[in-house]
Amino acid sequence: MAKGDGVKLIGFWTSPYVARAMIALNLKGIEYEFVPEDLLNKSELLLRYNPVYKKVPVLIHGDKPVCESLIIVQYIDQVWASSGPSILSADPHERAFARFWAAYVDDKVIPQIRALIFGADEKKAEATELLFAALLQLEETFVKCSEGKRFFGGDTINLVDITLGSCLSLLKAIEIITGINILDKTKIPRLVEWTEGFCSDDAVKEVLPEAKKLVEYSEALLALRRAASAPPSK
Amino acid sequence: MAKGDGVKLIGFWTSPYVARAMIALNLKGIEYEFVPEDLLNKSELLLRYNPVYKKVPVLIHGDKPVCESLIIVQYIDQVWASSGPSILSADPHERAFARFWAAYVDDKVIPQIRALIFGADEKKAEATELLFAALLQLEETFVKCSEGKRFFGGDTINLVDITLGSCLSLLKAIEIITGINILDKTKIPRLVEWTEGFCSDDAVKEVLPEAKKLVEYSEALLALRRAASAPPSK
Repeated sequence: MAKGDGVKLIGFWTSPYVARAMIALNLKGIEYEFVPEDLLNKSELLLRYNPVYKKVPVLIHGDKPVCESLIIVQYIDQVWASSGPSILSADPHERAFARFWAAYVDDKVIPQIRALIFGADEKKAEATELLFAALLQLEETFVKCSEGKRFFGGDTINLVDITLGSCLSLLKAIEIITGINILDKTKIPRLVEWTEGFCSDDAVKEVLPEAKKLVEYSEALLALRRAASAPPSK
Repeated sequence: MAKGDGVKLIGFWTSPYVARAMIALNLKGIEYEFVPEDLLNKSELLLRYNPVYKKVPVLIHGDKPVCESLIIVQYIDQVWASSGPSILSADPHERAFARFWAAYVDDKVIPQIRALIFGADEKKAEATELLFAALLQLEETFVKCSEGKRFFGGDTINLVDITLGSCLSLLKAIEIITGINILDKTKIPRLVEWTEGFCSDDAVKEVLPEAKKLVEYSEALLALRRAASAPPSK
């Protein structure tokens, strides 16, 4: 493993954004210290290094912070360019294409995941529909761009793989919560194949949390929110 | 001027996103054909080259499209790396920093502009407050990072300059619409100085539309929306 020169990652195990940074560090073989954040009582470290958003992940490298998951992944790819596979192709058009679809995941997949786990019941049918539409669009893109290869990045994991792949545990958690088959072989066969390749990659397999644990966590968080919003005793 | 090999930009003159691509092309001295889009009746060209979002800007280079303004700017910076100044620094930390603050503008400034021009009246006080908070944050960042230089990028225009600068005509339009002094020297003195340097740059001065024209356009669009949502005649 390449040295990471005291690289730290402030994170939390449920966050797909944190998983992105972890996968990128693993792909590059960078040693790092994981600093678990208490999201209910944010640390001085987090507030000092990400005062604007106060959110994880924050990568600390050479005592300087880098915030926002996709920015962190691109930072890691550049700093450790000669270690491991390239996360972004050197080709400008392929880079733009990867950035576009990574942003698409953040724009079209993540909000539906949030709605299906934490949203109002009456919004869930629409969120399910939008989630399927996004996954079908990603299936179509994968069929076109992968040319039969394992990943959006071809033979190796790229920015789109990391961005979408970081959501897989949450998608599986939604299957448990809703009983709906999200990763449905009959609808998105190539994407389901892709999930298998992605999740079994050495850089990924220790990173993504168990769906069952995510369900337990989200139920506990929802219970806390309900209790917190209950009216004060009469 | 360097040749652009048949570069086209599908755009519309009111869009700050389109202005970003134009400024980046100008900085690099790239000749291009501007293809004005009819946003009320979208062209086959737009639908073919940006089927996912159907939005401007789309840069067409070598018959391949690049979509999403910040992705386009980074594409231009990479493809024409040896022409004009670098829009992103080669230093990984500076790149991450610039990407972070460019995304901040999209996240914190643009939604308030939209709310102040097109939003419901009862939301405008909150939008004004959030807009001032974002501008104060950007002032603080500019004071810290610019070390007395003209731009976020130092002596030359970078990704943050382009992203924030593309909003200046809209901010001035909001001043006309609301009567509120947004670019207020007493609150954000360094940022006001920065606007002057930015707007007078050769790559910028022909790009940004007149605020008065934007006010006329937004009033006409609002009138159309009101007419379209009026109940059918009884």
